[in-house]
Amino acid sequence: MDKNQALDAVFDLKSVAIVGVAKDEEFNTGRLFLNHIIEYGFKGPIYLVNPKGGEAFGIKIYPHMKDIPGSVDYVISCIRAPLVPQLIKDCAAKGVKAICSFTSGFSEFGTQEGRDLEREVKRLAEQTGVRVIGPNCIGIHSPKACFSPAPDFPKESGRVAFLSQSGGNTLYLVRAAGARGIRFSKVVSYGNAADIDESDLLSYFGQDQETDMIAAYIEGVKDGRRFYRTLREVARSKPVVILKSGRTQAGSAVAASHSAALATPHRVWKDMVRQAGVIGVDTLDELADMLVTLRYMPPLGGKRLAMVGVGGGAGVLGTDDWDENGFVLPSLPEPIRQAWRTALGNVAGTILTNPVDIPFLGFGQEPFMKALAQLHNLEGIDLLVFHTPVRGHMISVAVGGMLLDAEAETIIKVHQAPGKPMAVVLHYEANLDGWKLADKQTSRLYEAGLPVYYSIPSASKAIDRYLRYLANRGTA
Amino acid sequence: MDKNQALDAVFDLKSVAIVGVAKDEEFNTGRLFLNHIIEYGFKGPIYLVNPKGGEAFGIKIYPHMKDIPGSVDYVISCIRAPLVPQLIKDCAAKGVKAICSFTSGFSEFGTQEGRDLEREVKRLAEQTGVRVIGPNCIGIHSPKACFSPAPDFPKESGRVAFLSQSGGNTLYLVRAAGARGIRFSKVVSYGNAADIDESDLLSYFGQDQETDMIAAYIEGVKDGRRFYRTLREVARSKPVVILKSGRTQAGSAVAASHSAALATPHRVWKDMVRQAGVIGVDTLDELADMLVTLRYMPPLGGKRLAMVGVGGGAGVLGTDDWDENGFVLPSLPEPIRQAWRTALGNVAGTILTNPVDIPFLGFGQEPFMKALAQLHNLEGIDLLVFHTPVRGHMISVAVGGMLLDAEAETIIKVHQAPGKPMAVVLHYEANLDGWKLADKQTSRLYEAGLPVYYSIPSASKAIDRYLRYLANRGTA
Repeated sequence: MDKNQALDAVFDLKSVAIVGVAKDEEFNTGRLFLNHIIEYGFKGPIYLVNPKGGEAFGIKIYPHMKDIPGSVDYVISCIRAPLVPQLIKDCAAKGVKAICSFTSGFSEFGTQEGRDLEREVKRLAEQTGVRVIGPNCIGIHSPKACFSPAPDFPKESGRVAFLSQSGGNTLYLVRAAGARGIRFSKVVSYGNAADIDESDLLSYFGQDQETDMIAAYIEGVKDGRRFYRTLREVARSKPVVILKSGRTQAGSAVAASHSAALATPHRVWKDMVRQAGVIGVDTLDELADMLVTLRYMPPLGGKRLAMVGVGGGAGVLGTDDWDENGFVLPSLPEPIRQAWRTALGNVAGTILTNPVDIPFLGFGQEPFMKALAQLHNLEGIDLLVFHTPVRGHMISVAVGGMLLDAEAETIIKVHQAPGKPMAVVLHYEANLDGWKLADKQTSRLYEAGLPVYYSIPSASKAIDRYLRYLANRGTA
Repeated sequence: MDKNQALDAVFDLKSVAIVGVAKDEEFNTGRLFLNHIIEYGFKGPIYLVNPKGGEAFGIKIYPHMKDIPGSVDYVISCIRAPLVPQLIKDCAAKGVKAICSFTSGFSEFGTQEGRDLEREVKRLAEQTGVRVIGPNCIGIHSPKACFSPAPDFPKESGRVAFLSQSGGNTLYLVRAAGARGIRFSKVVSYGNAADIDESDLLSYFGQDQETDMIAAYIEGVKDGRRFYRTLREVARSKPVVILKSGRTQAGSAVAASHSAALATPHRVWKDMVRQAGVIGVDTLDELADMLVTLRYMPPLGGKRLAMVGVGGGAGVLGTDDWDENGFVLPSLPEPIRQAWRTALGNVAGTILTNPVDIPFLGFGQEPFMKALAQLHNLEGIDLLVFHTPVRGHMISVAVGGMLLDAEAETIIKVHQAPGKPMAVVLHYEANLDGWKLADKQTSRLYEAGLPVYYSIPSASKAIDRYLRYLANRGTA
């Protein structure tokens, strides 16, 4: 089976086998997979294999692949590395489409034995047509098939595909971006990329009808030319955001021992990404910020913004941050100032500047809503930003919760009316209380279609990258 | 009364009056102060003043300052700006030590009237000796007097003093640093600095027997020469960490309308800070990171570190981050590698490099503890770093909690034995679940005397600044 067919089948899997699962009262990663696949809600049959036999979670463990009564689409292997080649042969006999090999101990070990083993895996994948994901990875997450290695991943499908050379970074990004309203079509943690590699996945997601944008975490590429060619081609039709680790020599060396990644000098890499029209980022959080921006921010006309928020010190620091990323906060024309004066009376300190510093209490009131609506439609402004220092107030957590509710309601109401693009910054979480408040509002806001950021520096960086991406594509 | 005497009296206050408090069934900021002062646990009498009379929280509201039966140390004013001069005179008659004027409407308004009013406040403070904090601020937090404007601030006193020109930034920093084990001796939000200004406060904290280090958020200084002289002098005996906003022209302009701050070109400011031996930072989180480092990190010999953590991708990205801040992760000598091989068997992928990638499951087991102890005492290493991607794992939240418990226990055990300085990075919180897990472990770890950071970039930046500070002082 060719790689694209195998990927199609695997993201639509109807049955799975976990090989090397431990029986009840023992523990291994196979049991983690089993537990999570059940908990996430996979409906198809789950087969277990271990020569020792027994039972796990009430499911019989077969001694061998060939003993499984039904057909198997996808196999998760948790057996020791030297046993994997034989497993591929057994899977071929059984008609399996692809194996994810979780276990490490291949070329990333840096030994001749490990390299030989990985070469053998690659050869067998090509020969048998049983495609291999990994080794040294957690494989696929496919919400449409109700299949996931993590029970707490979002259940709904979205339009973002993610390929990641690290399992941990996969788990982090899906959770972090998930909390801000990003949903995935298909996710794959692909480790050492012995068989299915980054170019295969990029090309596959490029053609995938269920995918509108692509995110990637990459430690090294197998074939630079092919990767660049694929990148250019895919980036023409879909936004691609890439985080490449190994920016430094030290980082590259560690990448080699993590996923056997080949080093690309970071300068070369950066040029390549820019020329391909791809958005490069430097951290996983920047990757999440970028996905949120691409998903929830309409095209912007420029860098002139009006900012409204509760908190003077936060506004001062925030103005520095916007300015450093090339944004301007123009002074507001007299009619708008007058609207704010009417709305706020004598309460706030900085009502006549931009940012507008507002008290919490005005939210929802008529003159306040009017002033906001005017700002939302102001000529000479490209973007309206709300910022709230969640725990940068005297108010208690309980009262803070009520005021944030009122604020979110107001923001959503303004957003529903025609006007400029909007963004919300929920910053100053400070501590767990703050994260509880922010988490609740974030859900409400993204459900209403708004991009939510957790700091002004991160918002300004992401929106600046977005504008450069739009300009590059000629759509700004 | 001179300013230092007034500050001594106010941080040791026995009684307070809130002027302009609204009665029950109405709402204003005076009621917030009242509510929070009671909730934080202030033991002395709280007097309320409002010409309209009535009651609030069962406390009688007097029509006038002169009607208060007992003596009053500290007054919080929530009345309109034009009424403040008369209040100062009334306070003088009553023997009040200092007033905090919460209300804005002074020079930060940018009007002649506002400037005149502020000048009058300054003149009256000097003439009557009733010192003024603000206007446009939330005043003091003094745990030793059980007095705070925020009910959720830590109750215990510590050895850090904080002066802040923004109330919101005060509230954020005390909460954010508080969650990581920073406790304060004295905190003051000082707004426009009409009377008591940044130089007064810096000099006061410099001499304060209860203060070991000083943090500051400053938007502008009143008297550059005096401030620089004070800074140099104070920095000779205590670490001083300063966040200055208004790095950009746009930010400076907003600072002027927030707290009437005078602009200092940022380049001039940076030179001044460096020459005075002060630690400059660029964000509130960096300020918190720096306080955590100064409080919990012993002096370091250099930039060679060993990192141990659960998660390969996080290790790769983290290595880039350390490298970019000039740290080195030397390869580990053979006996240490052997100890890890014994401890981990064949499980982990990158056991032979630095960072050491470990499985969660080894924690607490004998050979694992041995390998850690060896690393903790390794020649050629200046610092041992643990990192944990909190939600960068397949494990469920419940199991994650148990494993993090075991990990924290192990880290604390290693830390209690003699060895190199240690730091812990709890990163990859991802979402609210992650913050819940991280918050619990952070408390355990700082209670055991460990510095905790929330990302490797922030840890490496803070520890790099710490090393430069030590070198500057000749103690590295």
